[in-house]
Amino acid sequence: MKNHFIVVEGLEGAGKSTAIAKVKQVLHQHGIDDVITTREPGGTPLAEQMRTLVKQGHPDEPLTDKAELLLLYAARVQLVENVIKPALANGQWVIGDRHDMSSQAYQGGGRGMDAALMQSLKATVLGDFAPSLTLYMDIEPSQGLARARGRGELDRIETMQLDFFERTRARYLALAKADPSVVTVDAGQPLDTVSRSIEQALTQWLTTQNTP
Amino acid sequence: MKNHFIVVEGLEGAGKSTAIAKVKQVLHQHGIDDVITTREPGGTPLAEQMRTLVKQGHPDEPLTDKAELLLLYAARVQLVENVIKPALANGQWVIGDRHDMSSQAYQGGGRGMDAALMQSLKATVLGDFAPSLTLYMDIEPSQGLARARGRGELDRIETMQLDFFERTRARYLALAKADPSVVTVDAGQPLDTVSRSIEQALTQWLTTQNTP
Repeated sequence: MKNHFIVVEGLEGAGKSTAIAKVKQVLHQHGIDDVITTREPGGTPLAEQMRTLVKQGHPDEPLTDKAELLLLYAARVQLVENVIKPALANGQWVIGDRHDMSSQAYQGGGRGMDAALMQSLKATVLGDFAPSLTLYMDIEPSQGLARARGRGELDRIETMQLDFFERTRARYLALAKADPSVVTVDAGQPLDTVSRSIEQALTQWLTTQNTP
Repeated sequence: MKNHFIVVEGLEGAGKSTAIAKVKQVLHQHGIDDVITTREPGGTPLAEQMRTLVKQGHPDEPLTDKAELLLLYAARVQLVENVIKPALANGQWVIGDRHDMSSQAYQGGGRGMDAALMQSLKATVLGDFAPSLTLYMDIEPSQGLARARGRGELDRIETMQLDFFERTRARYLALAKADPSVVTVDAGQPLDTVSRSIEQALTQWLTTQNTP
């Protein structure tokens, strides 16, 4: 699918926010300024409420893995239908802070959710809608978590054990390898090296797109 | 599946609350007093928050049909795993104010959601878990809605057009016809007649169960 939807993916502490700022800068250098950014889960009033349920859970009740997955896809439907597709149809570019690849990696890989269910949900919610380009910021889980922990309080997901993030990363890498629209960036390098990698990948992609 | 899970189903204004009170009374007459009641969507702290999203939506954002369906199943997972199954395992009886048949009727019938998706969600969330007995309170939508409106403010679902409820009722009737564990009660009759119908159906069922 060719569209103007670019997604930045990766584990906690992989530097997604910095990467998104860089993507916006590079787009600006190419004369592209009508850009919105979205985040998942969330990005709409209803989806943000679903995000809160997923991130905080409830002190008296465990959130089951299945309910978590269904909430994530409910939030994704809201964002895609009410924000992303209308923006793209309106000629805007959209940069997504996480998208479906996160569910595939965290819930499919990390939690080991059933592959048939994952496929069914994705097909139902997204059909053939997908980003044209995904920058996967690859980092060692221990390195990423150390950065994330340095930022302060951790949410329900971020307090999972290290092996959960190892499985999530392994799935991210497998998905990136299998999908030509995903560019893997070594996010463990120094910041300016990472920044140059993003610029190179995005510039090359923009050139092949003949856009804007 | 043989268990002590009894569900009361039906359109708005069909008299579910009265029916549930009657079911409890009849169980009591049979010496069954360790009974809890649940409602769907809801019935747990997290599921009640999902219920609020479904019932109220948001003034600035439409809740998509797909997100509604996913939220309903997310709430159902929480209730079944965290409340209903533990109660049954603990020897309690459970009376459900709505359960999966509501999604089949309202979302499958009323909204016309994809049958394959409905089946996939049900299989994923419930597996072979199902109530042993369902009392479907059948009522003309116009009659039920008139009663429900008499009770006061209407929620997002209750303000749907009449043809939505006609489709929902048609699906309820078709499901009841196909499933021997569902007893259809004519809820349009006078209250004492309805009450007797419930008592007869439940007493007969309890006799065949050789329970408690």
